[in-house]
Amino acid sequence: MQNLLEVVDKKYMTQAGATSGSLEFQVFFSNHASNDFNTVFASLPPSRKYFAAGIPGSFYGRLFPRCSLHLVHSSYALHWLSKVPEELLDKTSPAWNKGKINYTSSSDEVANAYAAQFQKDMKIFLNARAKEIVVGGMIILIMPGLPDGVHRSQFPFDGLYDSLYSSLMDMVKAGLINESQVDSFNLPVYAATPKEITEVIKDVGCFSIERMEVADPRSKIGSSVNVHSLIMHFRAGLEDIFTKHFGCEVIDELFERTFLKEAEISYAMESSYKKGTQLIVALKRE
Amino acid sequence: MQNLLEVVDKKYMTQAGATSGSLEFQVFFSNHASNDFNTVFASLPPSRKYFAAGIPGSFYGRLFPRCSLHLVHSSYALHWLSKVPEELLDKTSPAWNKGKINYTSSSDEVANAYAAQFQKDMKIFLNARAKEIVVGGMIILIMPGLPDGVHRSQFPFDGLYDSLYSSLMDMVKAGLINESQVDSFNLPVYAATPKEITEVIKDVGCFSIERMEVADPRSKIGSSVNVHSLIMHFRAGLEDIFTKHFGCEVIDELFERTFLKEAEISYAMESSYKKGTQLIVALKRE
Repeated sequence: MQNLLEVVDKKYMTQAGATSGSLEFQVFFSNHASNDFNTVFASLPPSRKYFAAGIPGSFYGRLFPRCSLHLVHSSYALHWLSKVPEELLDKTSPAWNKGKINYTSSSDEVANAYAAQFQKDMKIFLNARAKEIVVGGMIILIMPGLPDGVHRSQFPFDGLYDSLYSSLMDMVKAGLINESQVDSFNLPVYAATPKEITEVIKDVGCFSIERMEVADPRSKIGSSVNVHSLIMHFRAGLEDIFTKHFGCEVIDELFERTFLKEAEISYAMESSYKKGTQLIVALKRE
Repeated sequence: MQNLLEVVDKKYMTQAGATSGSLEFQVFFSNHASNDFNTVFASLPPSRKYFAAGIPGSFYGRLFPRCSLHLVHSSYALHWLSKVPEELLDKTSPAWNKGKINYTSSSDEVANAYAAQFQKDMKIFLNARAKEIVVGGMIILIMPGLPDGVHRSQFPFDGLYDSLYSSLMDMVKAGLINESQVDSFNLPVYAATPKEITEVIKDVGCFSIERMEVADPRSKIGSSVNVHSLIMHFRAGLEDIFTKHFGCEVIDELFERTFLKEAEISYAMESSYKKGTQLIVALKRE
């Protein structure tokens, strides 16, 4: 699970006798303790101008001493919820998510459970960072999001999630997995709106919102999306979650079957909301 | 290669509004980038009272921003030289170390080359830490050492090194390795004296020596040493170095043959210097 948090700890030269005015700083790369930190360390450029560190642990909790950070950056990580909302695991709940693997085309009960989990997680994240960041320090967040007022079913990847579900059901019919396995599977990812983010930030109360916008990453990369590449990209991010639930032996089959649905995914994406889906938030510690 | 450097970065609570007086601090575990940091992170106690970080890189170089550390601790790591002294790799040099794999029972030329490398490395280590530690901060070092005035050949592990060499030569006779491979092999480890350490510290000039002693670890663990365990302990530390030079297929054979020499290793240890071999140094950044 990608859960990257990069934080920069700038230390101004205050040592007596220091003559050079150069700024030295440390970049902390945070991820779950099971992340392959050696690969991270091996991929750092040898000529880098910063000191590197690896921080093991979830960013939904404290990771650093108080007032030790100047800049926190999280890119495409905060859409990962800390867990699937509990209501979705209860067959008797109105949020039991039969026939879907995420919330975008599900009932309001399901979507509300996801939204509530996002609010809880984001609050924990911001409260932890509020303690760790110095007054005047910044948080820059980039994450999937949706503009206020656009319905969740318009989220461009809704069609891809539906095709993954459809592939799973094909595999049920082929006797490769059980339907109950599919019914109890939900992806713990959520794309929030500026309104939702603003609510949590105000609730936490330690940060001023310096900037918030929903940008369109596609304007930078051209209008058409290569669906095959997109599926592979999703596989890289989601494979671990699928594997833990369904076992590693079915994962190739699942994505091979989903590749065959490229046309319908492409059509669904074309029919969906086509503007900004990338939420950019800049916060300042007050 | 064990190259552990632990540093503690204590941050006092200075955040406005903080009411608790508890001290929060971060412990940085440093090692070569190729070290298995995930095993380190997985072995940290879950209920620890500090924030943990992994720092990739050699401690013979800068690892942290200026004035960012309060306490540096290195335990049984600084006896690892950054490399085998270059003179030892030159067949025409008087420091060509034929018939030995370390310096303890070698010529003065070999021993002087090791001592010079230690001085160079230790100077780099101290100069780097001098920049990183705040004024008043401390360094606590624990490493193998020998009291001033005790000849290097009295080092208790001299017999073990000789037995490892003897096992290698047995393997040359058995046609398993070449004699030239053995001649060009030297262990990059050195046990310094208080006088040598003091010289480097004074040369660097940023630290006061708060305490220096050569302690006897054996007084804590009883008088007799289990040589079998000692060989296994050395294998854990040295295996990587032997493997890189001789290949991984001969390493079991090497240590199996050395186990057969337990009696002579034990005898050599009994005949060697039997008091302090553990150097403890406490330095304060001035």
